[in-house]
Amino acid sequence: MKAAMQAYVDGFNRADPQAIADLYADDATVEDPVGSEVKRGKAAIAAFYKMAVDTGAKLELAAPVRASHGNAAAMAFNVHLNMPEGKARIQVIDVMTFTPDGKFASMQAYWGKTDMVVEP
Amino acid sequence: MKAAMQAYVDGFNRADPQAIADLYADDATVEDPVGSEVKRGKAAIAAFYKMAVDTGAKLELAAPVRASHGNAAAMAFNVHLNMPEGKARIQVIDVMTFTPDGKFASMQAYWGKTDMVVEP
Repeated sequence: MKAAMQAYVDGFNRADPQAIADLYADDATVEDPVGSEVKRGKAAIAAFYKMAVDTGAKLELAAPVRASHGNAAAMAFNVHLNMPEGKARIQVIDVMTFTPDGKFASMQAYWGKTDMVVEP
Repeated sequence: MKAAMQAYVDGFNRADPQAIADLYADDATVEDPVGSEVKRGKAAIAAFYKMAVDTGAKLELAAPVRASHGNAAAMAFNVHLNMPEGKARIQVIDVMTFTPDGKFASMQAYWGKTDMVVEP
């Protein structure tokens, strides 16, 4: 599970949305941020990550990836991006659940407006 | 939500299981770690935290607490404890969901054996 989480970060930072989408099961779901509309299925997920990497955003782990005793893992990371207001950092925690064959079944991203920091 | 998460950490580090239990709704659930048996209700939750703080464990945030756009928040932290083998650190991510009146409705702790590090 930790290897898949790291492959997610690496795929994002290579700006490779297809590599990210291939980590997901065909009928997987993405809720980013938690509380927003859920994206379902590989095509919607690939489109979401294309949009995300096209912003130029880069991910940096804030702490080591955690696994669970069950079929889930979580990681805390910072998203670095350039906004009209300047460099910004979004502090996020992602939780992924896994299918038996090691694909992401679901992703939930925990972040809100108060987790976005414009850097000096 | 972030204030409640901080109160959780503070209550734990004061070794005050009742203060922690009071952050939970009456019918709340705790799954620690994810994949283990779910504890349900304030009495079971208070007993769980009494056991946890009696180990002498202390919590240290590894990164700022995250909120979501929905009724949930997450935090990455290290649990420091003294084990027969020496000082140990468990790297955990907790996800809490909230009731409308700001109590924890559920807690899920993401960690497994590979997240436990014995320190030199």
